[in-house]
Amino acid sequence: MNVTVIGLGEMGSALASAFLKGGHPTTVWNRTPGRAEALVAAGAEEAASVREAVAAGELVVVNVKGNTVARELLASAGDALAGRSVVNLTDGTSAEVQAVAEWVAGRGAEYLHGQIMTIAPGIGHPDAVVFYGGASAVYERFDAVLGLLSGHKRLVADDPGVPVLYGMAVHDTMWGTLNGFLHAAALLSSEGVEVGRFLDDAGASMKALISFLPSIAEAVDSGEHAVEYGALKHHLPSVEDLVRESRERGVDDAFPGFTRDLVAEAVDRGHADDNYSRLIEHFARR
Amino acid sequence: MNVTVIGLGEMGSALASAFLKGGHPTTVWNRTPGRAEALVAAGAEEAASVREAVAAGELVVVNVKGNTVARELLASAGDALAGRSVVNLTDGTSAEVQAVAEWVAGRGAEYLHGQIMTIAPGIGHPDAVVFYGGASAVYERFDAVLGLLSGHKRLVADDPGVPVLYGMAVHDTMWGTLNGFLHAAALLSSEGVEVGRFLDDAGASMKALISFLPSIAEAVDSGEHAVEYGALKHHLPSVEDLVRESRERGVDDAFPGFTRDLVAEAVDRGHADDNYSRLIEHFARR
Repeated sequence: MNVTVIGLGEMGSALASAFLKGGHPTTVWNRTPGRAEALVAAGAEEAASVREAVAAGELVVVNVKGNTVARELLASAGDALAGRSVVNLTDGTSAEVQAVAEWVAGRGAEYLHGQIMTIAPGIGHPDAVVFYGGASAVYERFDAVLGLLSGHKRLVADDPGVPVLYGMAVHDTMWGTLNGFLHAAALLSSEGVEVGRFLDDAGASMKALISFLPSIAEAVDSGEHAVEYGALKHHLPSVEDLVRESRERGVDDAFPGFTRDLVAEAVDRGHADDNYSRLIEHFARR
Repeated sequence: MNVTVIGLGEMGSALASAFLKGGHPTTVWNRTPGRAEALVAAGAEEAASVREAVAAGELVVVNVKGNTVARELLASAGDALAGRSVVNLTDGTSAEVQAVAEWVAGRGAEYLHGQIMTIAPGIGHPDAVVFYGGASAVYERFDAVLGLLSGHKRLVADDPGVPVLYGMAVHDTMWGTLNGFLHAAALLSSEGVEVGRFLDDAGASMKALISFLPSIAEAVDSGEHAVEYGALKHHLPSVEDLVRESRERGVDDAFPGFTRDLVAEAVDRGHADDNYSRLIEHFARR
């Protein structure tokens, strides 16, 4: 199968490289020249225009800076787009991706959106993850070639916006975890405790954090927030201690203060015996 | 070995029960009466005063509401405290715990602080974790009896304040993770995606979040924040997309906006090529 890759940033180059290694004739194009040299040396064809690139590949993979650029580039292919299958791996919001999907469908081409969950050197790795959205018939037809990009891949919805939300949900949790961990690291460092030693000692407790999530998910999905143990009334004194400890050590107290305020407010509203999941009402507010 | 447990809340009762199951003659005391019945039925002795309770146990375990109460109760034991070994499992700040430790030492008793990392039904479970601080000779002498409380236990420092910081560091990261996950859940729910299904699909990505922490810890400990992949400049467009997505869906945008501001500020200060660990400078600010 002939594959085309549009966009040769670090990620696009890694994608093209994976297709080449998988034995697929691969055509590449990049707006600014000079990015294709190593790929051409490895056997890729460099197209002179997007139109030429799109014409060369049954599967057209797009990885550029933003979905406005993605759509402009695809538009420049003119009628070469009809009958092609586009896999758009360009980051953006779900609405932007849905707009590209509609536009591509209107040009007579098939469309999948893919949300890449790894950095460029992870492409092709068994642990790498890509979430896809689109028609299952299209996804299944390209199963083998997309399998070259990541050991884990999954079609999560026919709506191309859903994998975008999946990626955001992972990153959202990641930033929460990293911010919490950095605040913790500031506390530990203020006492001269090495953060690495803490992680070695507390590895089991840290791994357990992720194991709390299914019960939180179930409570959010069901709207049933009552819980027997670990209710908000038990979180409150602990997070109050954390705020005081931070203040006494001259470490930022606004970060734990945010959680303290959320918990205290929920307890005030009568949710003392509820799961932490009750705070969904704060985050989901409109 | 005779063991005393002072404080029979949900947690204190679970502690006493574990000692009884382990075959230790166990004396219990609680300020408000009526909490000891089940324990007495299981073989515990109920003491009429703290002094009597302390006199009965070589090892005196304290689990009450706050370290002011812990110190007042131990003071009421008078000279019965001398020669005893106190394991204080009462929550509080590191300074509060250190003050109790000094006071106990001044009364001629040994002291360990223990930070319990489980809910009451987890006491005695192989997965339960307790972090201890104090003299290693004392810790080792009580190794077997403390091993009845949790499958995982570790002496993390001779300073009794350090296990407190360990507990706070785990909880700090936990609240960060939970807040991030609940915000993510709000986004997914707004599209009608079940949060449980997301977790099933994205399990590998979620587990990977914890695997980022050792490199963050190393950067914080070394002060070396340069990184080849996943630098702050790459976080910035992703978190900007998350803020826009939240706003467009009517989901709280202040939570991702906090991260966006931190990242943008660090990039503005010239740290675009640094690891996310660079944000320690925000959290550690005095």
